Amino acid sequence: MKRIAILTSGGDAPGMNAAIRAVTRKAIFEGMEVYGINYGYAGLVAGDIKKLDVPDVGDIIQKGGTCLYSARYPEFASEEGQLKGIEQLKKFGIEGLVVIGGDGSYHGALALTRRGFPAVGIPGTIDNDIPGTDFTIGFDTAINTVLDAIDRIRDTATSHVRTFIIEVMGRDAGDIALWAGVAGGADDIIIPEHDFDMESVAKKVRIGRDRGKKHCLIILAEGVMPGHEFAEKLSEYGDFHSRVSVLGHIVRGGSPTARDRVLASKFGAYAVDLLKAGRGGLCVGMFDNQVVATDIVETLESRKHQPDLSLYELNHQISF
Amino acid sequence: MKRIAILTSGGDAPGMNAAIRAVTRKAIFEGMEVYGINYGYAGLVAGDIKKLDVPDVGDIIQKGGTCLYSARYPEFASEEGQLKGIEQLKKFGIEGLVVIGGDGSYHGALALTRRGFPAVGIPGTIDNDIPGTDFTIGFDTAINTVLDAIDRIRDTATSHVRTFIIEVMGRDAGDIALWAGVAGGADDIIIPEHDFDMESVAKKVRIGRDRGKKHCLIILAEGVMPGHEFAEKLSEYGDFHSRVSVLGHIVRGGSPTARDRVLASKFGAYAVDLLKAGRGGLCVGMFDNQVVATDIVETLESRKHQPDLSLYELNHQISF
Amino acid sequence: MKRIAILTSGGDAPGMNAAIRAVTRKAIFEGMEVYGINYGYAGLVAGDIKKLDVPDVGDIIQKGGTCLYSARYPEFASEEGQLKGIEQLKKFGIEGLVVIGGDGSYHGALALTRRGFPAVGIPGTIDNDIPGTDFTIGFDTAINTVLDAIDRIRDTATSHVRTFIIEVMGRDAGDIALWAGVAGGADDIIIPEHDFDMESVAKKVRIGRDRGKKHCLIILAEGVMPGHEFAEKLSEYGDFHSRVSVLGHIVRGGSPTARDRVLASKFGAYAVDLLKAGRGGLCVGMFDNQVVATDIVETLESRKHQPDLSLYELNHQISF
Amino acid sequence: MKRIAILTSGGDAPGMNAAIRAVTRKAIFEGMEVYGINYGYAGLVAGDIKKLDVPDVGDIIQKGGTCLYSARYPEFASEEGQLKGIEQLKKFGIEGLVVIGGDGSYHGALALTRRGFPAVGIPGTIDNDIPGTDFTIGFDTAINTVLDAIDRIRDTATSHVRTFIIEVMGRDAGDIALWAGVAGGADDIIIPEHDFDMESVAKKVRIGRDRGKKHCLIILAEGVMPGHEFAEKLSEYGDFHSRVSVLGHIVRGGSPTARDRVLASKFGAYAVDLLKAGRGGLCVGMFDNQVVATDIVETLESRKHQPDLSLYELNHQISF
Repeated sequence: MKRIAILTSGGDAPGMNAAIRAVTRKAIFEGMEVYGINYGYAGLVAGDIKKLDVPDVGDIIQKGGTCLYSARYPEFASEEGQLKGIEQLKKFGIEGLVVIGGDGSYHGALALTRRGFPAVGIPGTIDNDIPGTDFTIGFDTAINTVLDAIDRIRDTATSHVRTFIIEVMGRDAGDIALWAGVAGGADDIIIPEHDFDMESVAKKVRIGRDRGKKHCLIILAEGVMPGHEFAEKLSEYGDFHSRVSVLGHIVRGGSPTARDRVLASKFGAYAVDLLKAGRGGLCVGMFDNQVVATDIVETLESRKHQPDLSLYELNHQISF
Repeated sequence: MKRIAILTSGGDAPGMNAAIRAVTRKAIFEGMEVYGINYGYAGLVAGDIKKLDVPDVGDIIQKGGTCLYSARYPEFASEEGQLKGIEQLKKFGIEGLVVIGGDGSYHGALALTRRGFPAVGIPGTIDNDIPGTDFTIGFDTAINTVLDAIDRIRDTATSHVRTFIIEVMGRDAGDIALWAGVAGGADDIIIPEHDFDMESVAKKVRIGRDRGKKHCLIILAEGVMPGHEFAEKLSEYGDFHSRVSVLGHIVRGGSPTARDRVLASKFGAYAVDLLKAGRGGLCVGMFDNQVVATDIVETLESRKHQPDLSLYELNHQISF
Repeated sequence: MKRIAILTSGGDAPGMNAAIRAVTRKAIFEGMEVYGINYGYAGLVAGDIKKLDVPDVGDIIQKGGTCLYSARYPEFASEEGQLKGIEQLKKFGIEGLVVIGGDGSYHGALALTRRGFPAVGIPGTIDNDIPGTDFTIGFDTAINTVLDAIDRIRDTATSHVRTFIIEVMGRDAGDIALWAGVAGGADDIIIPEHDFDMESVAKKVRIGRDRGKKHCLIILAEGVMPGHEFAEKLSEYGDFHSRVSVLGHIVRGGSPTARDRVLASKFGAYAVDLLKAGRGGLCVGMFDNQVVATDIVETLESRKHQPDLSLYELNHQISF
Repeated sequence: MKRIAILTSGGDAPGMNAAIRAVTRKAIFEGMEVYGINYGYAGLVAGDIKKLDVPDVGDIIQKGGTCLYSARYPEFASEEGQLKGIEQLKKFGIEGLVVIGGDGSYHGALALTRRGFPAVGIPGTIDNDIPGTDFTIGFDTAINTVLDAIDRIRDTATSHVRTFIIEVMGRDAGDIALWAGVAGGADDIIIPEHDFDMESVAKKVRIGRDRGKKHCLIILAEGVMPGHEFAEKLSEYGDFHSRVSVLGHIVRGGSPTARDRVLASKFGAYAVDLLKAGRGGLCVGMFDNQVVATDIVETLESRKHQPDLSLYELNHQISF
């Protein structure tokens, strides 16, 4: 393979730029040419494609977001979209594609591979909810951003002896809430993957209060219910001076952490290795600290992401 | 004066601890004794008062919030509350009081002074909306926290070519929006102190978009209208892929900036100087880079806080 | 086991407080009592021991350093020191000990176990150089602190088209240099575990310069040679406008990252599980994402820490 | 005036990019054209000049360093250099120049004005040591960077009960040491503008130690003596377990604070106002919170920068 391309798709995540840099530099190191596709699959179909050289990916490793821009593009699920995409790739003489993104991005990569165009997926999303890897690019940065917010809110919660409901991203996955909750010393963590009982939550708050604890912090994954609804329901069990803080899009941005940059660099270089060997239809992942490749079909169909639920139990045992 | 006390009241603000430390240490340096009152005026009336020594205020200068806790206590507006408060102070042999907080806190200090108990106010609030000073304790930290959020949101806004409405604290005052907006390179800043016209805002967004600008950031003071309402109204003028981010209580917390710690230290030491000279009924402030004291009555009645509206015009001229 | 104790020893590391909190809370959750020993083995021998309750470890998870203080105490290598230590533990009715620290701390734990007093080690050091675990408490925070410094230095290096030698901690281990170097996009990384050739380094700088690269960053582990010596030797191969920055003790401090707090919490809780089961002479570690316990003797004698040298090769391939 | 240019000179400072953006946008807003000169006076003489449009200064307000690069260029002191510079400016049809930098940069601006080419100076340096302004661009960011380092070092100093000598930038000016020292709660601050006595320093350390204080932090401006020399001299008065930390170039970089970005924006816009009015030979500054312009000759010759020495006395009274 002499010429490959790269695109980012779906929600952006800190570390995507580090992955773009790694794919580009590693491919050039291996004697290949690299093209960048703007705006994900939308740009692929539209032919918004440009050559990337060494300086084009200089000074981006520390930046949040994606310098190739991203977009959601449901039209790529259609045969027409896919064929048009392959046509564009061939027009530029491109023989392989690296796709950085989440679930939807993987489906696009799979479709291309099935049509004979080798594509490799790299997991990039702050939610950590992609099967085929222990950690996704952006997750480590996201939990540290949430943690910084928790630490700030603790200051004001303590000063006013208040209970805070902190709503974090995570429609289907509780990973952000779990990790940031344990790291932030949250009194309780509410996630989609685990039942909860409002009365027990209230009891926990009350016990802390009775013991003289000044602040009470509850981390809530948005997928369970909105923070304000939660606060209202909690108030039926007592007056806990609750306040709600919704951490929205600030969690998507920011300079990536060391961990995310290293993970993205490893993933990017490995994706190039795979394409160089002519292999497509794979997604890159990290299992037990090792970078591996798994079949996209099998990954999407047979595996399901599971958060580290031992953290849930751990928090129960040490945060009271 | 041989014995003074200190309390924090109203919303907490980063730097209050630095002020508590400065009051305590400076008073001890001057040969006085210092007492800390917990939970503001509520604790004063309840007699929640303890002696503060040098180590009690060690290692707090870097901490957000207030180690004396704070509370709103409308009951202090009554004669009964004030007399009870003075009774408590006298019980501990306290001859003067330093109050750190906002508007409401000043009224309490004024009431005490009028009843013959000398009290001095120090302006502590993130909103910067207290007359009698150019800057309040906590404001500098707050605008840097907002700025950090803006910088993060810019990443994701750019990656998806989106418009963000960033709602910041400021019910009556646009200071936070103005400063953070100019510093963040906001496309527009919407504050209570200045009219705006939704059509012009939309036009600004459109011009930026047409020129190829990837992100559009609008900073909105909460006092004007909620962010979601603003986004809805804006959407009547075109599809700008708007998202809303509400920066709530995270802006109250966090380790204070250098500026806030120095300001708080100066204010605290100066308040002790005033009480030592037997002066009460005053509030400390910073005008034209000088620490000064003004009469609380005059300050509350005759002066009105005005944000630096030159920033509004400046932003119009350099942010397009 | 009904009563255990905990101490921190050797150089402090961010996350030690999170581990102290986890040990204390988990033990109380399991119905045990916990005692904190100040100043490591020195305090153990001196009997500087106090009971820890739930509130004693509140509000410390976010703090750098160790609230139990630390100290180096070579005297604990002697029989006399060890017997005295056990005597103190018995005086307080303590039946098991958790030791957080590095190599030296492990040796102390081993000695105690051999004398019949069960002790468990938790790896806490920024250097990541302890056998028996993939990651130590404090390492993740340290590499992010170094990374922040690298990002800052990149600004000024770029503005002046300069080469920077950034010396980081790591007397025998290159882990910090490797991880922070890859994450920071360093042009070269010099570590004790890998040979280097000054002429090749100079060539790399020259190639970057010729290509128009504005900055050149070389990360140097202190164990190889001092930064100033390196800069001098490099200057023999050309004038690269080199500057040296020695990141010293700032890398030890700071609020721990999410990763370090979670790791510390897991380690702390697991150490209590071991002691509860009456097991000593073990050290806790993380292998392939799993918390495990290994024999201290075997770990200290047969295993040797190895940095992830694949990062060295990776950096060579993507950083040019 | 229809066409102006801008350059940055001397050591870079965070906020220079915000000033470049403000000059460019404001000039375009006023109907003028703007040219950017790379590498300061060196680039001016070499003709390294390019047109700047609105997008060229987009997304730079948050970046440290200077996107126009900087360089020291003593040759500009010569008549030949100055005439060559003016020749280059005229070749591009440029009628006025904005110079951002320190002392040396002002001399260049003055020389150009004297030769009939109007130039305006903007104070940009982290040291705050330029006459004609209360604050320079970059100073606020620098003191917050130092403060972050102090807060980190406090963690490890406390854990090991150590004394730290923290050497900060400031060859002739103690501003950074003073502000960061007061904000960091330093036990002592050593600056070029104030005598000190090593015995008194040692006494202060000893008193704190005797009172049970765990850490002792001494902030030292590099202009007084190197940190290691200071530590050695201090050690003659007792064993204080001293460590030295030299905060070097990390203090130059980093994303500018809100304050620095606002200051830079105001200065940049005002410099354009001056040139638009045909005025040169001036430097912009901030006095008593007002942006003003003063004559460069008078400023350089008659005024002398003085740090706020009241901070020195304040620290003595509250930091013990």
